[in-house]
Amino acid sequence: MNPGSEYARDSRYLTTRITADGRDGFPVEPGRYRLVVARACPWASRAVIVRRLLGLEEALPMAVAGPTHDDRSWTFDLDPGGRDPVLGIERLQEAYLARDPGYDRGITVPAVVDVPTGRVVTNDFAQITLDLSLEWSAYHREGAPDLYPRELRPEIDAVNAVVYEEVNNGVYRAGFAGSQEAYASAYEQLFARLDLLAERLRESRYLVGDTLTEADVRLFTTLVRFDAVYHGHFKCNRRKLSETPVLWAYARDLFQTPGFGDTVDFEHIKRHYYLVHDDINPTGIVPAGPDLSGWLAPHGRESLGGRPFGDGTPPAPVGAGEAVPPEHTPLPS
Amino acid sequence: MNPGSEYARDSRYLTTRITADGRDGFPVEPGRYRLVVARACPWASRAVIVRRLLGLEEALPMAVAGPTHDDRSWTFDLDPGGRDPVLGIERLQEAYLARDPGYDRGITVPAVVDVPTGRVVTNDFAQITLDLSLEWSAYHREGAPDLYPRELRPEIDAVNAVVYEEVNNGVYRAGFAGSQEAYASAYEQLFARLDLLAERLRESRYLVGDTLTEADVRLFTTLVRFDAVYHGHFKCNRRKLSETPVLWAYARDLFQTPGFGDTVDFEHIKRHYYLVHDDINPTGIVPAGPDLSGWLAPHGRESLGGRPFGDGTPPAPVGAGEAVPPEHTPLPS
Repeated sequence: MNPGSEYARDSRYLTTRITADGRDGFPVEPGRYRLVVARACPWASRAVIVRRLLGLEEALPMAVAGPTHDDRSWTFDLDPGGRDPVLGIERLQEAYLARDPGYDRGITVPAVVDVPTGRVVTNDFAQITLDLSLEWSAYHREGAPDLYPRELRPEIDAVNAVVYEEVNNGVYRAGFAGSQEAYASAYEQLFARLDLLAERLRESRYLVGDTLTEADVRLFTTLVRFDAVYHGHFKCNRRKLSETPVLWAYARDLFQTPGFGDTVDFEHIKRHYYLVHDDINPTGIVPAGPDLSGWLAPHGRESLGGRPFGDGTPPAPVGAGEAVPPEHTPLPS
Repeated sequence: MNPGSEYARDSRYLTTRITADGRDGFPVEPGRYRLVVARACPWASRAVIVRRLLGLEEALPMAVAGPTHDDRSWTFDLDPGGRDPVLGIERLQEAYLARDPGYDRGITVPAVVDVPTGRVVTNDFAQITLDLSLEWSAYHREGAPDLYPRELRPEIDAVNAVVYEEVNNGVYRAGFAGSQEAYASAYEQLFARLDLLAERLRESRYLVGDTLTEADVRLFTTLVRFDAVYHGHFKCNRRKLSETPVLWAYARDLFQTPGFGDTVDFEHIKRHYYLVHDDINPTGIVPAGPDLSGWLAPHGRESLGGRPFGDGTPPAPVGAGEAVPPEHTPLPS
């Protein structure tokens, strides 16, 4: 980051796609790939939520990296011996270098790794979740919702575009701003957009249509981090999410919906942002707050109607191997 | 600050007193002394408020240092030519060195300077406000409240002692903690004490008795800074003051009382903490939030009774030369 500059995300991703027809050389195949995530990361968390809503846990197993990492890589320090038991690697970087020995861009999550070769296939987070919906449909659970219905795609895409620019990435543009002016611009855009989203959600339970869609997943992963990290650490502090009635009720509604809150690890989130960004938090002290109990308060959004899963059903409880530790979540265990 | 250590305030102050009988060589005398403050500083702000409540503006003129300073000193950079027009100095440090050429402790505000000699008499902030009440009484305005009534002193002192340790200084112990453990300890004490204070204030309009006292002044100067700086910058983030109903109503009641809110400069507060503490905010970005409009919302505390100024009256509006710039306060100008 240069002082005075705007923060710009490096958006050169590995865009090979895993598809039903295998046209990029990587056909959908249950058990062949490994979804590498970190629960700290909002981009990876999209994939964690969508995978769970669609019931792809068995078809696409998941590796969870620890919340902190050094300049080089996310690591598998949560696993016994510090190695992912399937890929056998300590650092996600190894799978990127297996793909391309000269790889010099971001070692990011989510990444989908081809297990037989140990190579990253894709880290194109925006496409990964759409492909889970569209390309992996043969392996969706019974009752899986349609998160990207054909007739709503233009509207979902339009919402996603502004939410990405001004909210999902907007909080980073505020937090990593290299000048007061760049910060102020990101801050104004962010809160103006949040006001518009609150207006949209005042009478409508979900962002697009009357069911959960990809658009809700993408907004949720930013909102759930808002008070824990973006408000203080990234200085997005006009008001807390918990002081923004419509969005706070909307976020609680999603949090309390199976597949959303049960994927969220607030300790990983806080430890990641406050420990990894030592340029903005050099002391490395991780805040004890905020109080998380409010996430479980009644949200009252049922009165708006809506059919969360459309013609489908909620996912089953989280499998034993993938549960968030009870001390990292306000949800009852 | 050593990593791992608790933050300890250097409490070796210059304790010479200005008294009615002049027993330390410095008798109360209108126009002889200059109260040097910074509106950013909570310790100095106590004196600003008490001076105004008691109507000592003419007897004890005030110099206002700018919000930021370097390692050496607070400076008079708000004044034309960067010099205090009465003391003729650029840096408060000069008045400390005039008192003691070998002075090597903190250059702190509030400081009371003897104008004829240019020397700091005292920077003992806890005693300064009490002496304004007790020793300067001959120069109090008509209708000045009794902020330290004899019969309530033991109770006021007891409240002040815990508020100092766990709240006024507690936020600094959290913010400047050298270890996660020291931070956690300060944070727990702070919020436990705030809970007790909220309980005390639930049915009682003021902290001690049914009128404003020194105890309210001391708690106010921390509460008014809470959401603007302590919540984010010092990581006192279990909840915002604005999410703590009783204390938030109490703080708004005081803010809207003449002599309190009209002394508060939120821009100076934010610029001071976020720019001076570059060890915890190395980017120097000053947050744009929080939204301050809530300070003017009705507080409803009149229903608890109480007589804010006892048998006295509110102070007149702030004099022209001492008004906070309208863009630095939510108060109507």
